[in-house]
Amino acid sequence: MSRTIIVAGIPGVGKTTVLQELENVAREKNIPLKIVNFGNVMNELFKKRGKTVHRDHMRRQDLELQAKVQEQAAREIGKTGGKSALVVDTHMFVRTKDGIWPGTPRRVLEELDPGLIILIEADPEDIARRRNADRTRERDSKTVDEARSDLEWSRYMASANAVLAGAPIQIVLNPDGHQRRAAEDLLALIRKRTLQ
Amino acid sequence: MSRTIIVAGIPGVGKTTVLQELENVAREKNIPLKIVNFGNVMNELFKKRGKTVHRDHMRRQDLELQAKVQEQAAREIGKTGGKSALVVDTHMFVRTKDGIWPGTPRRVLEELDPGLIILIEADPEDIARRRNADRTRERDSKTVDEARSDLEWSRYMASANAVLAGAPIQIVLNPDGHQRRAAEDLLALIRKRTLQ
Amino acid sequence: MSRTIIVAGIPGVGKTTVLQELENVAREKNIPLKIVNFGNVMNELFKKRGKTVHRDHMRRQDLELQAKVQEQAAREIGKTGGKSALVVDTHMFVRTKDGIWPGTPRRVLEELDPGLIILIEADPEDIARRRNADRTRERDSKTVDEARSDLEWSRYMASANAVLAGAPIQIVLNPDGHQRRAAEDLLALIRKRTLQ
Repeated sequence: MSRTIIVAGIPGVGKTTVLQELENVAREKNIPLKIVNFGNVMNELFKKRGKTVHRDHMRRQDLELQAKVQEQAAREIGKTGGKSALVVDTHMFVRTKDGIWPGTPRRVLEELDPGLIILIEADPEDIARRRNADRTRERDSKTVDEARSDLEWSRYMASANAVLAGAPIQIVLNPDGHQRRAAEDLLALIRKRTLQ
Repeated sequence: MSRTIIVAGIPGVGKTTVLQELENVAREKNIPLKIVNFGNVMNELFKKRGKTVHRDHMRRQDLELQAKVQEQAAREIGKTGGKSALVVDTHMFVRTKDGIWPGTPRRVLEELDPGLIILIEADPEDIARRRNADRTRERDSKTVDEARSDLEWSRYMASANAVLAGAPIQIVLNPDGHQRRAAEDLLALIRKRTLQ
Repeated sequence: MSRTIIVAGIPGVGKTTVLQELENVAREKNIPLKIVNFGNVMNELFKKRGKTVHRDHMRRQDLELQAKVQEQAAREIGKTGGKSALVVDTHMFVRTKDGIWPGTPRRVLEELDPGLIILIEADPEDIARRRNADRTRERDSKTVDEARSDLEWSRYMASANAVLAGAPIQIVLNPDGHQRRAAEDLLALIRKRTLQ
């Protein structure tokens, strides 16, 4: 049973904030914990290859490369040493101009071999409001209905992941102003799942 | 094409009652039929190993054991002899403190190799009422919204199961006071699917 | 990365019309494109075997044959030569008396190895109206709720497909009277995905 835990969340649920808070809480409580951002590992691998992928104009070769790098990232993360819990910060799906991409397709999932899949969720109303307030990213899906639909896609993908990996799904709610509480919930689930 | 049929349903749909009624109907009509409860087979295997798993405080070893026993149960059930239809009474998912567990993850599904997946469903309102009336089990999810959400998770998981196993999904409704009718519907579907 | 693209849609979304329009648009613009109807390939294979399958009274042998022919069709389509994009016209699921069948179960999906899954969708109200107006086919599910439920099943199945194949999902809307626009959207997505 793997000590790897996937943490996923759609844009606007506050995943980044909760994971930062998780690092703080773990440090305060002296609990060893490693958090790896899947996208960052991919970007590092692209850099090493001296390549960049233009998300908006991906050609077939780009897509092949992207798939290859995605698997390579999963393999590297899977090999991460140590005995502490390994949290993989990623997505159940990513919306690009090329469509709704599964964040952890079968081959990636097999490399990661997660023991738990945690979905960070929030009320669709909160998500829509946060998306509209966020000026750092241009986001297409800003209505409450779009937020609700994204939450649903995330659960569909998570179900396929759970059946393939034989891993359970946990849902952590992140209501406005309660990221500390969400981080503590997250830590409790992670500890429970990775206890020897 | 397998003669094994998975019958699943979330707590409160009345699965146990319908399956008891199914046994009665099959006996009355002299139709050979074998019903196996997946959880019971797992419990027997745990007993043989002289182990019990404390659901509320599962450690990593417990989880590994649990996964192993789950696969072993599937293998034993898969080997069940005879030519009659084999009904496996199980769940698309189980809610525990460790999360939403897939009842038939890929490895279990491959052993069972079902020819049909039947979901017993009921109106969310009926489910919520039945859950509140049931004093034998402590259940956390007793609102109509929770029942609706559980029905949805069940369909998500069933879809992943169907795509993996190449098997169709049938839905049998169990409205209040009509368990006899539900059992007859169930028997008709089972017979149709296992006819030589 | 495959140049095969799955196009799926539930009855009433206007898939057939949009795909006919797609052929027109591609011809006008001199864009090479091959569209294969999965069901037709299966029917041809049945004919060659001198067999027909009675959908309403399928026995176990019929089901075994059906599964075999389905895989054979996928294999043949997968071998289709040429460098142009290959569009496979099929379903995420088919409702028969035997249940909700996955249109592209794992084995079929592995043969097709799609690089993109496109779902043609429409408003549930439009779908229900079109289903009621269509006298050529007897359809059971004619309410708005049934249309909504079918759209959802389609997305559940598509999610399992996407995770298994590592392919993205695109959604093309087909509102009343805009099939030309839908076909142009479809062509743009196909070209983008199959560009060298």
